[in-house]
Amino acid sequence: MTYCLGLFCHEGLVGVSDSRTSAGMDHISIQPKMHLYDMAGDRCVCLMTSGNLSLSQSVFALIDEDLALGRRDERRQHLLNQRTMYETARYVGMKVRRVEQLDKEHLKRDGYTFDVNFLACGQIRGEPHELWQIYPQGNPIHASRESPFVQIGEFKYGKPILDRSFHYGATLDHAVKCGILSMDASMKSNVSVGPPIDIFVYKKDTFHVGRRIRLNEGDDFLVAIRKAWQEGILGVVNSLPTLAAEEDENRSPGAGQG
Amino acid sequence: MTYCLGLFCHEGLVGVSDSRTSAGMDHISIQPKMHLYDMAGDRCVCLMTSGNLSLSQSVFALIDEDLALGRRDERRQHLLNQRTMYETARYVGMKVRRVEQLDKEHLKRDGYTFDVNFLACGQIRGEPHELWQIYPQGNPIHASRESPFVQIGEFKYGKPILDRSFHYGATLDHAVKCGILSMDASMKSNVSVGPPIDIFVYKKDTFHVGRRIRLNEGDDFLVAIRKAWQEGILGVVNSLPTLAAEEDENRSPGAGQG
Repeated sequence: MTYCLGLFCHEGLVGVSDSRTSAGMDHISIQPKMHLYDMAGDRCVCLMTSGNLSLSQSVFALIDEDLALGRRDERRQHLLNQRTMYETARYVGMKVRRVEQLDKEHLKRDGYTFDVNFLACGQIRGEPHELWQIYPQGNPIHASRESPFVQIGEFKYGKPILDRSFHYGATLDHAVKCGILSMDASMKSNVSVGPPIDIFVYKKDTFHVGRRIRLNEGDDFLVAIRKAWQEGILGVVNSLPTLAAEEDENRSPGAGQG
Repeated sequence: MTYCLGLFCHEGLVGVSDSRTSAGMDHISIQPKMHLYDMAGDRCVCLMTSGNLSLSQSVFALIDEDLALGRRDERRQHLLNQRTMYETARYVGMKVRRVEQLDKEHLKRDGYTFDVNFLACGQIRGEPHELWQIYPQGNPIHASRESPFVQIGEFKYGKPILDRSFHYGATLDHAVKCGILSMDASMKSNVSVGPPIDIFVYKKDTFHVGRRIRLNEGDDFLVAIRKAWQEGILGVVNSLPTLAAEEDENRSPGAGQG
């Protein structure tokens, strides 16, 4: 299983992805899910992916092929010569559809679904910074001020912390914290999501990969933030009011007697 | 969707369930998922259910039928004359299998799965307090000191808070808090899980339904605990260390360049 997360805030973009892939409990290996591309001064694009690893590798192979051929042929469409982030997301979707043509029927025949999702975030000079998700069908959907994060893969465990603590007005530092906590919740509740954690931090209007950070298992910061979070959560739970028995009678009677 | 949760601690048992049922977004209604049974001084049993409402209603109808017939016929097996909580869970499983015989094939024909889960918790005099889950196949599994909670239905959003804050050594008051926070996480992240919240609190060796509480939307306590939790979480996030840019160079390089 995989978990990838994109965070969209007024200061920029943050991507967080795990690095575990599994084909059954006895076949778990490390596989980074984040690929970064930049043309310094012009654009910066981060791609993350979840789902069937063979399918996402095919998409990346096609993307890389176009980039290589694009160096010799200016007219060739590739990831880094689209006009907008929307067109960039559409380009990724086109590659997803190409792989669908190659593999979907063969997978279906053996009972597998065509499952591959992408996140594409970044900025092109003259355009706003944006965060897009590309579905297995190739169509894209973007984050907004009202829905400022997008998750793919094993997303549920890591959603409550984002619902409570992340919003578009957050700083990049706050977004990084929220992203790590969301990833950590997934790792704690599902063993098939695991480190190292890749983090991409993009400050808007910089047009290059600002920070790329890998937190390995046992990283000092990861250990410290986990400990502080665990202790902080317990502190809050302990400080919460208790549901007083004396108040029970003032409430409606609750579950029915069988 | 539904979310039900059973918590097993050294002081007793806590059950928490939502009350929303949906058959599509335009067909949402209130349907309590918790049924309480006691024979004061002898035993107390709490049943909770998730899945297809028609199936769980059939199971409850069969259980109630046996209880009614059992009043006239001492030899009749029913929910409240089993020797142990294990046998009680097995009895519920038997009723699930009866409904499976009645409905599974007809559901399957139209593409529906036979989906119904139960939690059964309580205590019988002379026996320990126990918490069981009964699968749609009718087989049971119990909570333990090492795995002291069981969830059915829309469980993922509410799992991280339990992983971090609940353990067998907790008090009943703490278990109630954890249960409400877990339910609230589910309600916040999935609109199809909703109030009122039913709560069952059983103190071990009392053999009767101690407390049954219904928290309606807008309940003073629910509002207060939500507010305190939201503020507490944000306070902890804000107090966490920041991932310092100066430290980036001491880490391995992170995601690969495309």
